[in-house]
Amino acid sequence: MSSLFDQFLSTSEAIEVVGERNFLQAMLRFEAALAQAQAATGVIPQAAAQSIIGTCKVDLLDVSKIVRDSAFAGSVAIPLVKMLRDTVALFNPEAAPFVHYGCTSQDAIDTAMALVTREALVLIRADVQRIVAALLQLAGQHADTPMLARTLMQPACVTSFGLTCANWAAPLVRSLQRLDDSAERALQLQLGGTVGTLEKMQGQGAEIARLMAQALGLSVPLMSWHTQRDSWVALGCELGLLTGSLGKIAKDLVLLSQFEVAELAEPLEAGRGGPPSMPHKHNPVASMVALAAAQRVPQRVATLLAAMPQEHERAAGAWQAELAEWPQLLMSVHGSARALALALAGLQVNPKRMRSNLNAVRASLPKEAAKEWFSPDLKQHAAQLARQQVAALRAQSQADGV
Amino acid sequence: MSSLFDQFLSTSEAIEVVGERNFLQAMLRFEAALAQAQAATGVIPQAAAQSIIGTCKVDLLDVSKIVRDSAFAGSVAIPLVKMLRDTVALFNPEAAPFVHYGCTSQDAIDTAMALVTREALVLIRADVQRIVAALLQLAGQHADTPMLARTLMQPACVTSFGLTCANWAAPLVRSLQRLDDSAERALQLQLGGTVGTLEKMQGQGAEIARLMAQALGLSVPLMSWHTQRDSWVALGCELGLLTGSLGKIAKDLVLLSQFEVAELAEPLEAGRGGPPSMPHKHNPVASMVALAAAQRVPQRVATLLAAMPQEHERAAGAWQAELAEWPQLLMSVHGSARALALALAGLQVNPKRMRSNLNAVRASLPKEAAKEWFSPDLKQHAAQLARQQVAALRAQSQADGV
Amino acid sequence: MSSLFDQFLSTSEAIEVVGERNFLQAMLRFEAALAQAQAATGVIPQAAAQSIIGTCKVDLLDVSKIVRDSAFAGSVAIPLVKMLRDTVALFNPEAAPFVHYGCTSQDAIDTAMALVTREALVLIRADVQRIVAALLQLAGQHADTPMLARTLMQPACVTSFGLTCANWAAPLVRSLQRLDDSAERALQLQLGGTVGTLEKMQGQGAEIARLMAQALGLSVPLMSWHTQRDSWVALGCELGLLTGSLGKIAKDLVLLSQFEVAELAEPLEAGRGGPPSMPHKHNPVASMVALAAAQRVPQRVATLLAAMPQEHERAAGAWQAELAEWPQLLMSVHGSARALALALAGLQVNPKRMRSNLNAVRASLPKEAAKEWFSPDLKQHAAQLARQQVAALRAQSQADGV
Amino acid sequence: MSSLFDQFLSTSEAIEVVGERNFLQAMLRFEAALAQAQAATGVIPQAAAQSIIGTCKVDLLDVSKIVRDSAFAGSVAIPLVKMLRDTVALFNPEAAPFVHYGCTSQDAIDTAMALVTREALVLIRADVQRIVAALLQLAGQHADTPMLARTLMQPACVTSFGLTCANWAAPLVRSLQRLDDSAERALQLQLGGTVGTLEKMQGQGAEIARLMAQALGLSVPLMSWHTQRDSWVALGCELGLLTGSLGKIAKDLVLLSQFEVAELAEPLEAGRGGPPSMPHKHNPVASMVALAAAQRVPQRVATLLAAMPQEHERAAGAWQAELAEWPQLLMSVHGSARALALALAGLQVNPKRMRSNLNAVRASLPKEAAKEWFSPDLKQHAAQLARQQVAALRAQSQADGV
Repeated sequence: MSSLFDQFLSTSEAIEVVGERNFLQAMLRFEAALAQAQAATGVIPQAAAQSIIGTCKVDLLDVSKIVRDSAFAGSVAIPLVKMLRDTVALFNPEAAPFVHYGCTSQDAIDTAMALVTREALVLIRADVQRIVAALLQLAGQHADTPMLARTLMQPACVTSFGLTCANWAAPLVRSLQRLDDSAERALQLQLGGTVGTLEKMQGQGAEIARLMAQALGLSVPLMSWHTQRDSWVALGCELGLLTGSLGKIAKDLVLLSQFEVAELAEPLEAGRGGPPSMPHKHNPVASMVALAAAQRVPQRVATLLAAMPQEHERAAGAWQAELAEWPQLLMSVHGSARALALALAGLQVNPKRMRSNLNAVRASLPKEAAKEWFSPDLKQHAAQLARQQVAALRAQSQADGV
Repeated sequence: MSSLFDQFLSTSEAIEVVGERNFLQAMLRFEAALAQAQAATGVIPQAAAQSIIGTCKVDLLDVSKIVRDSAFAGSVAIPLVKMLRDTVALFNPEAAPFVHYGCTSQDAIDTAMALVTREALVLIRADVQRIVAALLQLAGQHADTPMLARTLMQPACVTSFGLTCANWAAPLVRSLQRLDDSAERALQLQLGGTVGTLEKMQGQGAEIARLMAQALGLSVPLMSWHTQRDSWVALGCELGLLTGSLGKIAKDLVLLSQFEVAELAEPLEAGRGGPPSMPHKHNPVASMVALAAAQRVPQRVATLLAAMPQEHERAAGAWQAELAEWPQLLMSVHGSARALALALAGLQVNPKRMRSNLNAVRASLPKEAAKEWFSPDLKQHAAQLARQQVAALRAQSQADGV
Repeated sequence: MSSLFDQFLSTSEAIEVVGERNFLQAMLRFEAALAQAQAATGVIPQAAAQSIIGTCKVDLLDVSKIVRDSAFAGSVAIPLVKMLRDTVALFNPEAAPFVHYGCTSQDAIDTAMALVTREALVLIRADVQRIVAALLQLAGQHADTPMLARTLMQPACVTSFGLTCANWAAPLVRSLQRLDDSAERALQLQLGGTVGTLEKMQGQGAEIARLMAQALGLSVPLMSWHTQRDSWVALGCELGLLTGSLGKIAKDLVLLSQFEVAELAEPLEAGRGGPPSMPHKHNPVASMVALAAAQRVPQRVATLLAAMPQEHERAAGAWQAELAEWPQLLMSVHGSARALALALAGLQVNPKRMRSNLNAVRASLPKEAAKEWFSPDLKQHAAQLARQQVAALRAQSQADGV
Repeated sequence: MSSLFDQFLSTSEAIEVVGERNFLQAMLRFEAALAQAQAATGVIPQAAAQSIIGTCKVDLLDVSKIVRDSAFAGSVAIPLVKMLRDTVALFNPEAAPFVHYGCTSQDAIDTAMALVTREALVLIRADVQRIVAALLQLAGQHADTPMLARTLMQPACVTSFGLTCANWAAPLVRSLQRLDDSAERALQLQLGGTVGTLEKMQGQGAEIARLMAQALGLSVPLMSWHTQRDSWVALGCELGLLTGSLGKIAKDLVLLSQFEVAELAEPLEAGRGGPPSMPHKHNPVASMVALAAAQRVPQRVATLLAAMPQEHERAAGAWQAELAEWPQLLMSVHGSARALALALAGLQVNPKRMRSNLNAVRASLPKEAAKEWFSPDLKQHAAQLARQQVAALRAQSQADGV
């Protein structure tokens, strides 16, 4: 399914979370929660709800037929709802008309995407936290390890490896916080009915929404967000920012791992990093994954933003474009986070080489300039900042339960 | 200056705010605040600070020479600092070495960009607030005005024009809130020295930063954000989200203003909207401006995100790319907000046509379907939601001092 | 596999062409052609080549294991080559070292992508040709059918539906020509060995490349294009241009199919275009698919362009990003072309409504303006152009064997 | 005008070519050619044409007033035509109605953009040719200079610096060819009248177009391309491809110029490359400019592609977005080409360091691996390819009059 090149740029967990089966199951959770809430508010009969809820199991449905039929229908909800209704009708024909009652495709699909995204965010957060933990430990440990500071890709002055690590960690700590805020706003129930007015809900729309959101663990929006995509796309932007910050780490790792620099190296794993015929190759595979994500994700975010002007009550094309980009966004972000989590956990640090690279610069300069800009003692400024950062970032992380 | 096509896609105010003169003045405010803080902390002599501060006036400098020289230097800070230093030296030669003391170009430029951005945000906010006010008024006034609801560009059911307006307003109210949060985090002092360690600040770096930030009305970051671009680019994302939400309004305006639909029209102004030879033309010029912004801005945001992986302590290319996109981003966003503020303030609403379009759909359908989906009575669901929305959005706006 | 939302935005044929199985088969075709050419030039033993060629069948390999292992290896070629070598070794251990002899992963993968792309282009071309044929027929048939011409979404003057169709067709005729040129340059053998120097080919590199290219039906590049991506990405740009031209048609279709305009309608197929509960809905599903493609593909092209600066002899991240975008690009383009081919083949044209919309504009204007700008007689200018266009486009199409 | 950051990312020549004055002058050339052709075909009086042609001089108009008024009109053509008409009327009132006769704003603007683009392409071509010349010379000179070949940012094998240069040059030679083809198709007269039907040209439209195109040195399109943007945007794509190929060179230059690698260096110019306080800094400023372009231009191209679906006979927003991006595209591309032309003309090559970096890798490996992959003798494969490339590229360049 065109996923050949996503295998090593993403993770099996993320691929499964955004996969067909899990997505359809999430849609069925929507349908079950809807039936339950509509029964509780008297909008549909209790017995119908029972039948519907009992049938909302992905194992009861023919997933590949739904996927196939969606191509013709132009929507995945139409064949899913039809099959669900037909299956319900086998057991309880009177319940069938109450399947997906008063709802539109977008209600089920947007809600399912929110549920699936929540799962993906759990994966992403866990790996980002591992990265932060690894970096803060390195930052503390190497607060005093002097290292060339480079600007415009040329030696500029002295920093410490600890400060470098703190610099990498700080944006991630902020990302975790912003992701939380953003997810809270974005992971909302979608419930609008055909055109956002819940016109078939017999005046119980607000209560049904409340019950469903509670059951599904989602927020209740002020009103349906069929074409109000800002909170949702804001979450996409956050994922873009996270990918950019991870990409910064990966870019530095790649640069610092060059043979001629050799200050860092990704952990060496048998069978990874190069073809068997070239034992000398020690490719920075994890960084490569994070860099690929950092090149693809910005355009994904652009597509989400460009798709925001959605016509009238529901769009023709823009919503579908957004939907199709979203799972790939989640896959890329987790691919990047996981790759760096593994690489940073076993990062090989070479303080001797940091020192000798610094010395080589000094040796190449007149004494005065060497002393002013490249004295190893200059590390003290970096060390102090590194220690402050680590303390502040640790405090912040703990305050946020990171 | 390539600005010919920005004239009508932006505003003269925004163009001035991000213009050369204002930007250089903002850089000079940085230099003055730096001298003042360094004198207060004893890092440079008080007399030197006096001379520097007195010279930090854009009128004293040859703006066009600085601009010209920047092309050669590859940085606007280098010729500015040189000219400032030379000018200071005319009056007080001993002060000259203390100009821009211990700082790097990026410190002055990032800080200036933050100052300039703050001015642009004032412009943007004011126009978005005018849009929100106009929309909430229309939403209340037309809560009960029935209107076709359209999905996938086809009639689907009934809504009210009031609900449509509430739908347009809600994302803007949220944008104003998020912009505030985001700006607070993004509008930070930049102060790192050559490589982020403030190595020439004699241990007074933190205090100098505190004083400067206070003087300039900016936040103090945990540490320099030379290559930690997340908070800054997050503000760019917010501007992208705002542009998308404005684009949604513009797209609907254009569609509802079509001759065959004619439910809305932008206010008619003499000399606008069409060539004099075609008096029948009533072009939706404001919406056109907002739509153009909605097509350009997502790619600007993508460039900002793609530029996040900045190498080592300061980048070669990525930072410069980000800088160059930013003013154009601000210009586009204000162009869009201003255009819609003017258009919505005088929006022509045609409830009769809304009714007759609805009736035309009903007339085309079998009685049963016409009644189920297009009875004007269905407006009641929309009306109720519209009123709730208006109340909630007003409350939210007031709580936030919008 | 995240393909749920690609099902109805692409086609089953395109999904299969870029799918895992077909891609791995294409890689095996590379390996077989390599062995054959190396044997013919005496670089490897003939018997080894026989064994390798006989084993290069996707049915002999465990596809899902290769895919799984690629995640760890960071490359799909490493596990494929390993499995191929192991399988060859079962039958002929002496042949095993000659599998993939002197090649790099990128040789096999880029070549396979070229082979797969050629298959996808056949699909795309066929549907674009169907669109052109349908449009030229409509253009001829309706050369004289007067129709409102609209600029900035407002009535401006008179055109004919025939000219509109010719306007839609012309860019597609050019696209077919440019695609041919571009494909000829882009569909090249990749063969460079580890770093582009073919250092293990015993001086037979050029001859091996010639033989392989001949066997695979690809062009021979001047030299390996490991990091010379221009010809390849140029093909991606062409696909972007085609998608934009298809998007233009789709946008007009959607606008002209609005209930209030009703000049055109996509063919109605049972079960498509709306949920069963809303028989009045006649959603322009095909146009929606083409519009979604037109929103996603530009960013895909941007990613390809942004990935061009690939480091040194082979890149870390940029090449992988390019690879992962490519199949999705092909899927989107074919989805768009197929959808419009179906829609235009059965397009419902309503000349009466075109006339009555035109009359409505006339009726709304002072006599003078109505006569100057909206007299149906103005169609004659359009009719003449339409007929010229159709003739020219037919000639061009035939000349190119379109 | 927000150009502060474009100064050093572009060139003064390019900024002038796409500037207001030159653009308005190009529009006036359109108006003059129109009057002349309309007089020649008897559509307007000869005397009127004389007056109009005599007035089509930018010095006679108030440029800043036109620019200012365009903001209100939403088009630069409306105030220009008005001022031109008013000025003509001063001398020859009877000629005034024949100004811009039968044309639309887009006719003048698109044609002017084509004229201006042609000028920019002359600048761009000249610098790309200088780059090609410099690279082919280096490629010949250093065909035998051994150099580490690096893949995934790690040493992989041996190449020669000559082959590296040939690798950089080849895409540029192709770009020059493709740019020529593409420009020939893109640099067309725009002439459609209000809606593309030339309805006021008294049947002389085709002849008027032929005469005008001849006078302006542009191609005559089959029909007006108001919403057929493919040939035009194809030129934008070519510029994107060129920028990507230049970016590849710049990325390698930056990497090979790192202190720890030191195989290359940009020429050192006084006052460039670093602040005066840091004499040790030798920043790769030219590469930085090219890298910034390579990060910005892909999104510009994406905007052009995304703007292709332009509604009906002329678009609301998409055309304006395209217009505004185009000059900045040209500015970026020339900035990149010029910067690299200067840098490569004086490139500092360090063959000793190439050799010692290679030796260092050898020394780090077991003898067997060192010999197999890093023997300096391996350069012979690269040398042979380099010589072939240089010959082929020279032949190609000369054949194309490059």
